[in-house]
Amino acid sequence: MSQSFATLSEFRALLGAQSGIDSASEAAARSHDSQLTKPPGALGRLEDLAVWYRGWRGGAVVEITAPQVIVFAGNHGVAARGVSAFPAEVTAQMVMNFQLGGAAINQIARVNGADLDVVPLELDRPTADFTAGPAMDEADLVTALRVGWDAVNPLADLLVVGEMGIANTTSAAALACALAGGDARDWTGRGTGVDDAGLALKTQVVAEGVALHAGQGDGLETLRRLGGRELAAMAGAMARARSLRIPVILDGFICCAAALCLERSQPGALDHAVAGHQSAESGHARLLAILEKEPLLNLRLRLGEASGAALAIAVLKGALACHAGMATFAEAGVSDG
Amino acid sequence: MSQSFATLSEFRALLGAQSGIDSASEAAARSHDSQLTKPPGALGRLEDLAVWYRGWRGGAVVEITAPQVIVFAGNHGVAARGVSAFPAEVTAQMVMNFQLGGAAINQIARVNGADLDVVPLELDRPTADFTAGPAMDEADLVTALRVGWDAVNPLADLLVVGEMGIANTTSAAALACALAGGDARDWTGRGTGVDDAGLALKTQVVAEGVALHAGQGDGLETLRRLGGRELAAMAGAMARARSLRIPVILDGFICCAAALCLERSQPGALDHAVAGHQSAESGHARLLAILEKEPLLNLRLRLGEASGAALAIAVLKGALACHAGMATFAEAGVSDG
Repeated sequence: MSQSFATLSEFRALLGAQSGIDSASEAAARSHDSQLTKPPGALGRLEDLAVWYRGWRGGAVVEITAPQVIVFAGNHGVAARGVSAFPAEVTAQMVMNFQLGGAAINQIARVNGADLDVVPLELDRPTADFTAGPAMDEADLVTALRVGWDAVNPLADLLVVGEMGIANTTSAAALACALAGGDARDWTGRGTGVDDAGLALKTQVVAEGVALHAGQGDGLETLRRLGGRELAAMAGAMARARSLRIPVILDGFICCAAALCLERSQPGALDHAVAGHQSAESGHARLLAILEKEPLLNLRLRLGEASGAALAIAVLKGALACHAGMATFAEAGVSDG
Repeated sequence: MSQSFATLSEFRALLGAQSGIDSASEAAARSHDSQLTKPPGALGRLEDLAVWYRGWRGGAVVEITAPQVIVFAGNHGVAARGVSAFPAEVTAQMVMNFQLGGAAINQIARVNGADLDVVPLELDRPTADFTAGPAMDEADLVTALRVGWDAVNPLADLLVVGEMGIANTTSAAALACALAGGDARDWTGRGTGVDDAGLALKTQVVAEGVALHAGQGDGLETLRRLGGRELAAMAGAMARARSLRIPVILDGFICCAAALCLERSQPGALDHAVAGHQSAESGHARLLAILEKEPLLNLRLRLGEASGAALAIAVLKGALACHAGMATFAEAGVSDG
């Protein structure tokens, strides 16, 4: 898998050429499932997850042993508009916290046996304020997509992507509104916890960005105009995972906004991904419905940094452990009804 | 914790004398949570779970390292009425499958780092058919409660209880109907997968049992009349966990029917328990509402054998790992908004 890209058009070409699910592996998994010592369907979504995973992964019946979590971090020019409850320097402070092992994602990745990589993207060079012009030029976008693409470990057997970036729920709301329609109020939430006045300002900023940039191009062009480096890097990582046949678990609102950009540029580009959880951030449920993804968990998390998706690794591990480890009716000498 | 019991009245006395949550530990946990490097509330239910766990467990901030899963198995006289899609000998066959490591719960316990104990209860001596008389006499009930009580490992730091028993959704439906009211149809589901005719027969059998036994006593007396040994053992284990300050994760419909028996005999007896998941078995959502427990997972499982609750161990582990492992704002040098 030495494919890569140097321009946006090369990235688009890669997206368009990616292969789909391995139908033979999917069918083999479905058949294997039907022989396991349980009433048909009794493991519910775990059965569907195992079949989906094997279909995308291809090959033999195996458990998940090498999940990778990547947290991308970026800074946003729009933070200067005062849309976050936290100052912009918190992005770099939290990157340090990730690197020292003190954040939530460090703990959740550890208890789920996942490797964690932290990838800051030019934190001292925020994107431009999207209410004044495009957040990124094409070179910035391609560089960030490429950072994400290159961050995926080809030996991983499951990928979780997440983010840190003060003001990035503002960026995500603008992307969702520009690509999926509706009013800025439908998509703008409290993020890390702005008050009512902060929410009104944030909604206004989202509306300004959408007015300036919506309808000017496809998902990737909209990502350039309203996104941020960490969102582009997540999109690049999701695309790379597809090329490596590594299934993906999506995290919350910001991650799913990045996913929507990919999906709108190349329908089906997220078929190798499941939604890890439904966030408490107000636009996420709506965004999941548009992506046609049913979340695995709904625990009212709204932290980002891949935390909800990393928690859902345990569900996928459980699904594959059952699929790979259970005895068949014949092996166990159990009557099959 | 050398408390035990030899009679039902001694068991009732133990239930009535059990202590509540440790308010000081609960408050300390809430205070610690507020200092961790995340926006307030951003970990959603994980925060509440950590506070709840520490309140019940007492003591210092620690992770969960020794979860115990116990699967109790029993046979039911009412199986002779033809209420299950599987023959009664499957109970013993599945116990063998558990012991050899081939069932779903073996895999789910393993990937979540839990010890699994399998406890069959007199499989060659089914309870009596509850449509003809009480399922158990008092000595049988006390013995089964005691088996559950004694099965809990005092060194465990989290307990999951589950069951295996052909026809036990029939028993659970009758218990729920007798204790919580409503019509037999509200509580009777397809279990391992009976067809429409089977469901009609099963509903009739539940209605017969309820007509004979409802209103004849409290939760434990109803358990004696309509329950089974594995249900009584689950109730005994839940009570023992309370006495040992071991928090409990409840499994599906049958486990929650056993829990309801305890709760109706001693209100608050389940305060040290959370609901691991919402099962696809039709009465479970209703039963969870009556128990006032919000499930952690909803993945359409309907297997029993502790599978859904054991999957939810990962959620509690994640909650406590964050609570114990995260840096505070002060430690990490992160601005707290």
